[in-house]
Amino acid sequence: MVSQPIPDLGRATAEMLARIRQRKPLLHHITNFVVMNDTANVTLHVGALPVMAHAREEVAEMVAAAGALVLNPGTLTPEWVEAMLIAGQRANELGIPVVLDPVGAGATTLRTQANQRLLHELKIAVLRGNSGEVGVLSGMGGVVKGVESIVDVADPVKVAKTLAKNLGADSVVPTGRIGDGPYAAPSQGIVVAITGKQDVISDGERVVLVDNGDPWLKTITGTGCMSTTMIAAFCAVEQDYLLAASGGLIAFGLAAELAASQAKGPASFKTALFDAIYNLTAEQIIAGAKARLTW
Amino acid sequence: MVSQPIPDLGRATAEMLARIRQRKPLLHHITNFVVMNDTANVTLHVGALPVMAHAREEVAEMVAAAGALVLNPGTLTPEWVEAMLIAGQRANELGIPVVLDPVGAGATTLRTQANQRLLHELKIAVLRGNSGEVGVLSGMGGVVKGVESIVDVADPVKVAKTLAKNLGADSVVPTGRIGDGPYAAPSQGIVVAITGKQDVISDGERVVLVDNGDPWLKTITGTGCMSTTMIAAFCAVEQDYLLAASGGLIAFGLAAELAASQAKGPASFKTALFDAIYNLTAEQIIAGAKARLTW
Amino acid sequence: MVSQPIPDLGRATAEMLARIRQRKPLLHHITNFVVMNDTANVTLHVGALPVMAHAREEVAEMVAAAGALVLNPGTLTPEWVEAMLIAGQRANELGIPVVLDPVGAGATTLRTQANQRLLHELKIAVLRGNSGEVGVLSGMGGVVKGVESIVDVADPVKVAKTLAKNLGADSVVPTGRIGDGPYAAPSQGIVVAITGKQDVISDGERVVLVDNGDPWLKTITGTGCMSTTMIAAFCAVEQDYLLAASGGLIAFGLAAELAASQAKGPASFKTALFDAIYNLTAEQIIAGAKARLTW
Repeated sequence: MVSQPIPDLGRATAEMLARIRQRKPLLHHITNFVVMNDTANVTLHVGALPVMAHAREEVAEMVAAAGALVLNPGTLTPEWVEAMLIAGQRANELGIPVVLDPVGAGATTLRTQANQRLLHELKIAVLRGNSGEVGVLSGMGGVVKGVESIVDVADPVKVAKTLAKNLGADSVVPTGRIGDGPYAAPSQGIVVAITGKQDVISDGERVVLVDNGDPWLKTITGTGCMSTTMIAAFCAVEQDYLLAASGGLIAFGLAAELAASQAKGPASFKTALFDAIYNLTAEQIIAGAKARLTW
Repeated sequence: MVSQPIPDLGRATAEMLARIRQRKPLLHHITNFVVMNDTANVTLHVGALPVMAHAREEVAEMVAAAGALVLNPGTLTPEWVEAMLIAGQRANELGIPVVLDPVGAGATTLRTQANQRLLHELKIAVLRGNSGEVGVLSGMGGVVKGVESIVDVADPVKVAKTLAKNLGADSVVPTGRIGDGPYAAPSQGIVVAITGKQDVISDGERVVLVDNGDPWLKTITGTGCMSTTMIAAFCAVEQDYLLAASGGLIAFGLAAELAASQAKGPASFKTALFDAIYNLTAEQIIAGAKARLTW
Repeated sequence: MVSQPIPDLGRATAEMLARIRQRKPLLHHITNFVVMNDTANVTLHVGALPVMAHAREEVAEMVAAAGALVLNPGTLTPEWVEAMLIAGQRANELGIPVVLDPVGAGATTLRTQANQRLLHELKIAVLRGNSGEVGVLSGMGGVVKGVESIVDVADPVKVAKTLAKNLGADSVVPTGRIGDGPYAAPSQGIVVAITGKQDVISDGERVVLVDNGDPWLKTITGTGCMSTTMIAAFCAVEQDYLLAASGGLIAFGLAAELAASQAKGPASFKTALFDAIYNLTAEQIIAGAKARLTW
């Protein structure tokens, strides 16, 4: 087990962010009503272009122009899940990464089953959820009430790694490199990211732990969804989805840290957070990334 | 007719707020698209947990975990009203308080009839609307254009009291006590709250008048819906819904007063309002509550 | 070809804004989920009243109380387009101006066809889109990706003028006058507004160029939709829709300029923008309008 120093993941994140800002990939979201405005804004602030489109009649055509597809069944109905499957299948055919945010998996049968369908009928690049949601989907523990993890899994590293390994058994995605480090490894398909006080990201072999973030994130709605959008932006410019997911969470967590000093409460924190995402510099990321990769 | 001094309702409000923050009840909203993000944030800021879920396939299961259910048909379709009825019936079976916000009742036949169905087919804990909306539902006057009361009822105390009495004739809810006061009284079921410059809350016997609030509230959308969410949070921790509704409106109005000094316009007011809800202290409430109970 | 000095359009805009604030027209929106909250707030801030309502069962009744109808199929489904047609037909019968924002026209077949239907089956007062969207609908160039114009039309004045002339061939709307100027001209029905760095507005004969605005507008979602709402507010109080559209865009662009000095990033800009719309004075408009009319 090798543990790398922080600067490499920071540098990789800064490089990916520069690519987002230069290429401005389109992020097609089929997402929930609560966060649509926020995630569209986060998409713009990080440097990408948002589109929200959910009609079955257009999602396959829309996703074809996208750099990544976000599926977030936070206010799902069966019709919306069908649209997600249609868009996801087309994205899979075209090699466009699909990022799944299983909001509220475990809270109701509908949510659990819908997310299991999305996870198993589609090839997902990154699954990002809270501890309870990912725990429920893995069958390894976790309890969800509403959209909140009220019982976390005991060992998130094990859950992320095992679920990624099990889901990704058949597929291989391109290998990436982080900065100058020698630790790139073959990826086994899906990347699982469990976010919380410490974010745990794994592709079944490699594990990244991210300690960026701030407690203010818990005081506003949709920060999980926003972090999923960040991951999607990074997936649109980086084929090693372990790196992409880590980069998205590092950048988001760091923006939260930078914003915290200006918070007088949750709403002023949110304003500062969005401003910080937009203003994030390579220097800030390289200096501030708190992440390490092991495998 | 006894009129109580202000401090008792303030103290009761502070106590209920402490219970919300400690218990973190889940507030299940089936609400309109315009305010979903705002009311989810207000839910978090006051100390509760939000979930927005409207699929007929899951609402009965979701509401079973909730401390209160908010029904707000502000962007209704017949399908959403059906989901509201399903969730409301389950909440009624489980004794979970249902708070109804009849957005735009009176503006169209669909809205008036949908709200009448929700009001009469469900057992509602608190009905909170503007003067026009409640007036229309009571048959005692009021005119609504869009979602605005353009003709208020002449005597809101009479309307609130009469409507509460008529709707609640059959049911009895638990009696509560306010602070150390001797003025708790049997409640006749539904509580009706008419909000405006002065809020009027009645259970058919008791009447509370709340003078907290600020004119800036009229300059942003969804403040009525936000106050309904506040009421729901208080109903989740207090079975005397007259107290709960009063507490929610006192806390919300007081937060608006505290925010007003930082407003340079409606949007900076909104930021300050959300921050103030989060930062509200027992001391501020006890010192600032402007409410009196009579019966 | 006569070019008028700036002050007249500024004065006309200030006068129209005063009428909005005095009459408080209801703006019925059938719009997309992303911007509903923002456009409801912009409606209030400019001095009008918002209502969002999309159920086929109520849109015809709701629009009858409105001063203008906004149709914005940014997150369309076929059902929503049907509701837009029902509302639009009723608005046409009653002489209520209909403002169309063809979000994403050109991005998918569904969007292009839906917007062509709305444009051709209804009598539209103002069509407001970005260069790509209007270009696609005109058949004169432009490429749209998601909701973004990625290839602008070569000659926006020609496109706006030609499309307005072609669409408005059959109908005549009332003639208006700007300030004290002698340049009012018969309008040929629909007004086409192409917004971007410079806004181009034409009724087929007259052309207004508006240079108000700020680059920050590109960093947040929904600014196109917000400008459409501004136009609708002005259309509700001014029957010369060329003037109304120009006034809405002058006021919106000027508010953006005033807000820019307070922006630390996109979110603080948005807060300042909304505050500035609310605080906009006649003096600011007359001094700051950068617009000229030619024909």
